[in-house]
Parts: sequence; C-alpha cells; structure tokens
Amino acid sequence: MSNLLVAQSGGPTVAINATLVGVLQGVRASGKIDKVYGAKNGIEGAIKDNLIDLNELIRDTKAMDTLTYTPSSALGSCRYKMKDWRKDDEPYRKIIETFKKYDIKYFIYIGGNDSMDTVDKLSEYCSLNNHDFFIMGAPKTVDNDLNLTDHSPGFGSAAKYIATTIAELERDINVYDIPAVTIVEIMGRNAGWLTAAAALARVNGGTGADLIYLCEKDFDNERFIADVKKKLAEKPGVLVAVSEGVKDSTGAYVSDQMSSGAVDNFGHKYIAGAARALEQMVRNEIGCKCRSIELNLMQRAAAHIASETDIIESLMLGQKALTCALDGQTGKMAAIKRLSDKPYLVEFISVPVNEVANHEKVVPMEWITPDGHDVTEEMMDYLKPLIQGETNLKYENGIPSQIKLY
Amino acid sequence: MSNLLVAQSGGPTVAINATLVGVLQGVRASGKIDKVYGAKNGIEGAIKDNLIDLNELIRDTKAMDTLTYTPSSALGSCRYKMKDWRKDDEPYRKIIETFKKYDIKYFIYIGGNDSMDTVDKLSEYCSLNNHDFFIMGAPKTVDNDLNLTDHSPGFGSAAKYIATTIAELERDINVYDIPAVTIVEIMGRNAGWLTAAAALARVNGGTGADLIYLCEKDFDNERFIADVKKKLAEKPGVLVAVSEGVKDSTGAYVSDQMSSGAVDNFGHKYIAGAARALEQMVRNEIGCKCRSIELNLMQRAAAHIASETDIIESLMLGQKALTCALDGQTGKMAAIKRLSDKPYLVEFISVPVNEVANHEKVVPMEWITPDGHDVTEEMMDYLKPLIQGETNLKYENGIPSQIKLY
Repeated sequence: MSNLLVAQSGGPTVAINATLVGVLQGVRASGKIDKVYGAKNGIEGAIKDNLIDLNELIRDTKAMDTLTYTPSSALGSCRYKMKDWRKDDEPYRKIIETFKKYDIKYFIYIGGNDSMDTVDKLSEYCSLNNHDFFIMGAPKTVDNDLNLTDHSPGFGSAAKYIATTIAELERDINVYDIPAVTIVEIMGRNAGWLTAAAALARVNGGTGADLIYLCEKDFDNERFIADVKKKLAEKPGVLVAVSEGVKDSTGAYVSDQMSSGAVDNFGHKYIAGAARALEQMVRNEIGCKCRSIELNLMQRAAAHIASETDIIESLMLGQKALTCALDGQTGKMAAIKRLSDKPYLVEFISVPVNEVANHEKVVPMEWITPDGHDVTEEMMDYLKPLIQGETNLKYENGIPSQIKLY
Repeated sequence: MSNLLVAQSGGPTVAINATLVGVLQGVRASGKIDKVYGAKNGIEGAIKDNLIDLNELIRDTKAMDTLTYTPSSALGSCRYKMKDWRKDDEPYRKIIETFKKYDIKYFIYIGGNDSMDTVDKLSEYCSLNNHDFFIMGAPKTVDNDLNLTDHSPGFGSAAKYIATTIAELERDINVYDIPAVTIVEIMGRNAGWLTAAAALARVNGGTGADLIYLCEKDFDNERFIADVKKKLAEKPGVLVAVSEGVKDSTGAYVSDQMSSGAVDNFGHKYIAGAARALEQMVRNEIGCKCRSIELNLMQRAAAHIASETDIIESLMLGQKALTCALDGQTGKMAAIKRLSDKPYLVEFISVPVNEVANHEKVVPMEWITPDGHDVTEEMMDYLKPLIQGETNLKYENGIPSQIKLY
C-alpha cells in the first residue's frame, strides 16, 4: 500500500481548496495511490492521529467542483510551528507513527511560510532517520510573500477583490460635492503586495485609489497630510489605500501612534488599525469629513469574486506537488515561474523548500514611485495578469454553493 | 416641447442607476419626450441650473447596459432638504425657472425619504401655483425603510452581498480549533432589514450568523454576553451580526457606551461603531479572541454581487415612474406590491408620496424571535426572493465595467 496524506495550514485564502482539489485530481489521474487522507487542522492532525478519509470525495465530481470554489481551508488549519527535532523530536515521532499506521508514503502540505518550514524540518528528519517518505509543499498565501515563486495561490483572487472593491468605492465616494477623504486599510504587515493591487482599479481608466502607501516605505505623517491636501485641492472625494503594516522611520507602526493613548471606559487600550489612526490624523490636521474602511477578512474570503487565473494555477500547483512526490522528490515546494507578461506565460516547477521557509518576499523599492504614494508600471505589468478571468462558481438560492468536509 | 428631467439623491446603492436606465428606456419607448436632462447632484442641480444632457446616452445601448450595472448615483447625489415653501419659496422659484428654461414638463426624482419629501413639497407647490408639471418619485434605499412599497431598490443587492459575505466569513472563522468571536456590523440606524439579511447565509444549510441583533429590539449587554458564552460552549467559532444602530433600553446607542471614554493622543474622542464596542465588551467579559468587522460602504457599493431580481425591479420602477408622469400623475411614487412569496409575484403601482415621505418602515417585532437574537421564518420568506439571480455584469481587464456620466 502507498497512501497519501494532504493538509492545509496558515491563514485561509479562496484558492487553498483549489490546490487540495488539484492534489486529489492528480491522485485520481495517476492511479498510483491506494488511499487518500486529509489531516484535520494541518500538521496537528498528523501529530494527533486526527485524519479525514477523502476516498469518497475523490470520486464525487460535483463535490470536487464545489470544493474548488469554497473559500478557506476545508480540512481546517493551524498556526503550529515545529520545534527543531534536535531539541524535541516527539511531534516528529508521532507524525511518523501516523504515517506508518495509515501506510502513508506521500505527504503534501499546502500553506505559507510556517508550513514550508514544517516541510523542510520534517523531510530533513525523515531523510536523516532513513524513513522513506516523500514530502512536498504547495504554496498558499494572500500576502504573496513566498520566496522562489513568481506569486502565490490566493493572492490573485484577493487582488481581484481589492481592485473591484476600490473601483466600486471610487464611484461611491464621488457622488457628493463636498470634500471627503476615505482611507482603505489592506492586509500586509511586512509586504505591500495586496495594497499595490488597489492600483488595479485603474485598469479601465478610473482613478482608483488616489494615494497608495505600501508598508515597505517609511511612512511620514507630514508628507501624508500634504499629499491628501494636494489631492483635495484637485477633487472633493479622495481615496487612500494603505497597508495595515505602515511604519515610520523608527520602525514604529502608524497604528500605534494614535491608539496608544486611547482607552475605553474599562481602561483597556484601543487597538486601532492604521486606517483608523490616519482617519484621526486627517480629522485633526485637515478637519474635513473622513472615513476609514478595513477590508478585513473579506479580502481573503471573497470566493465569489475569485480570479480564474488564480484558481487554475492553484489547481495546477496541487497536481505539480503530487507529481513531484510520485517522482520521488522530497523537501521541495511546487512553484510558479513566469516566462512572460505579454502574453502571460508560466511554467510549474519545484524549488528547494529550505530556501522558501523563513524568507519573506517584499515589494522591491524600485516598484514604488519616488513620491512614495503610488506603484510603477512594472508593478502593474506584474499584477495585471493575476486577476484575469471569472470562475464557474455556482449559485444556489441566491448565494454561492459551498461544501463542508467535517 | 415637453422635456424630462431626472435626478438621483440620498445614499448610493448598486441599483439606483438601473432605475435611471429604466426611466430612459421608458422615454425611448414612449416617443412622447423630446429631450431628457439629468440634474447634477440631485435637486441642487435643478436649483442651480446645473443639468447634464442625456440625449446621446439614451441612444447608446452599450452605455445604457454598462450604466445599469454601475454602482452609486451616476448623476451625483445630495442631502438637500427642501424648506417649507411657505417660509422660503426661493429654491422652489429657481426650480420652476429651470423647468421653464429647458421646457421641462416631467420631473422624476429617484431617492429615499428626503427625496420623497422633496417630491411631495414641490408637487404641492406647483399645483397650488397652477404650474402644469408632473412630478414623480422612484424609490431607492439599501435600508429598505420606505413606506408603502414592499421593498426598495438597492436593498435586495445589499442583502445578497451580506448573505454571501456572512457565508464566506463562516468558512473563514471556523478553520482554527480555538474559541473566537467575530462580530459583523451591518448598516441600519433605525431599521434592521439589512442585518436580518445575515440570516440568508443559511439558505443552503450553513449556520450563517449564530447570533443576529436588530436595532428594533432593546439591546441588553448581559444577555448578549450570556448568548455568546452559550454559543462558545457549542462551537469554537461564533459569528455575530449586529445593526450599527443597536440601542439599550434607555435609547442610548451601544456604540457610545464604550467609545465615550476613549480619546486619542490629541484628546479627540474615538467614534467607535457598535461592533467595535461589543468587541471590547467580549474581550473584557469573556476574554477570548474577538474581532469586529464593519461591512461599511461595501454593502451598498458591491455591484459585482448585485441581485438580478433587484436590478430588474429597479429598471421596472423607473419605467413605471415615467409612465405615471406621462399619464398625468404627480406627487406620487412608483412602488412594489407583493402578490405572493411562493411563487414570488409582484406588481408595480403608484402611491401617494406624502404617505411615504418622513415615515420610516422598521422591522415588525413579530419577525424577531422571542429570544431577541434571530429572525423568524416569516422574515426569511420575505427576504429569500429578493436575492435571487445573478446579473449580466460585464468584466473588462479583470474588473467590472463601469461608466461615468460627468
């Protein structure tokens, strides 16, 4: 018997189940796997012997189709960080026990940075202990901060949601003829890729976000207020996009500047976001109408506006990870290599996971305009292909169809 | 010459341009109108002689189609409240001047409560001064609080966005195996219709929002904390939907309870929303992980997930308002009369605008469950038909096509 275990980890995206489906499609097509199991709540399911039988699902075409368009991790997720096995090898031994108990030969872990760290450590542990398992990673993160892959599954769909939402907000904030500033906070503590996607609202000629501040660039309060005043002189409705993780030159989060002094009636500190802090700043410094909006979990959960390109690539990466495992690869991650922007061409490769784990791919400074409040044409060329196409998502009784695996 | 003026007012919705298109389609079909103008920024455009020529648009089928699916008021909007003409008739005289200057015989005003008040006062003023103008209102409001119409254009699409988003968030918040409360704030200061739409996330069997609090019912902090604790005992991820306007038994906004004490570093008061206040409350009283989410402007701007039923009815109401004006009606509003839920059947009627203006249709108490944290089957039967169907929205370069009229 040679069975397969698959698991999902880290923050949810709308494409992580497409990659799971890609793995299952590969299993069905290869005919080389006897049984398929899913680990519940990521690697924790393997440690705790908490598996889900996926052998019925794999034969249910309709369910597989619905799963492709269901947001978030259908197998559950975790934030578990594996310790160094030299210090504590107990979780490693438990995982091996589970592998042996279920005759598991192949393990595919779909996730971000921490998950690739798990793939790295576990594959190293197995090799050094002469365990014959094949362990592959498949990428996933809305933040798009994974190393050695052109971009990551989930990012394109989040970017499409952000571009669409900014374009819709542009219409909304421009109906009145009075000065008003709207500040939209977008996910990204250290990487501004998602915030850059706000510029995609312009692809059909709109202004989109008038000002875009990425967390890679030091944020200057005075320059920000000056930028906003300048835009207000040109038009009444000013739309600002800002990374949640913008920091000043000392490395202090902008969100802390304002909220540090704020306490509620119980004396508890208010944890305000960056947009909220900037909203206060605009009220205090300019005094015009100002509103802050957090795209919050919607930007990583909005499967109804997923990018077809993103979903197809996510499926392909799941299939690629399986193929690599069947070919005897281990300690690698399936990745996307871009061959050209126009026409948009990619190929699917595998990369050493130890060069992915614990690295963070941030936006190159040269893709941020010198004035610090916009992105360059190179960034636009990089982003545009990733939001192309709409999916075949089915609706039932007026809302998108979804599936639950447990 | 008998020309027509059309204008939009109040808060934007994703259906208000469909009603504008309905008016223009009616003009084209009737052949009884020589020229069509739009007043920029609502009635202010009529007062200030600031009109937009719509006679080219009306012959451009593609532009009309794109306009149907473009969110917010394409003619701009205003919050202008007409004074009693007995006290100050200057704005009335200026409007009549504009009407005469452009040979305008028919005026259609698309909007909510204040706009219907304008239709009421202006039509009364014209009749009493023997001016032969025909003035009709067409409804619009995401809040669904307009009197004498079964529901209002814009509401069904906002409800579809809310139902879809809650269903997506349900997936997102249930991936981890740790207790966490997510509180979603939904528009509605005095009417809880939009918040009730959170229950529609269950139409395909999901749990949707576990607890739903409408602003019509007195909000009790202790009962709320008890409700959340009870749900946390059943499942780790608890999803709460709450109206922005929830108030305690003294009529004080819940949002004020927490934020009243909070000030930023400049000593300025924090204006926290209801969800933010309840997030603090859960942290203080229960101490588990808690997150608040405001659907904010997205719920009234998300044209990409508009309800086909809503858009079609919005078109029909624009056509109905025009037909009534051509038939010599004035001081009326086009409205929807529901004939049955299953099958869903409606007819389009006209109602006296003075019975619409300055009334607020709130959720009947008997449609809120006795425990105070959910809605009844009657409410579900009322809501379900309104979110049915997806639109023919076109995408261009990965985002929805839109049109700007100025």
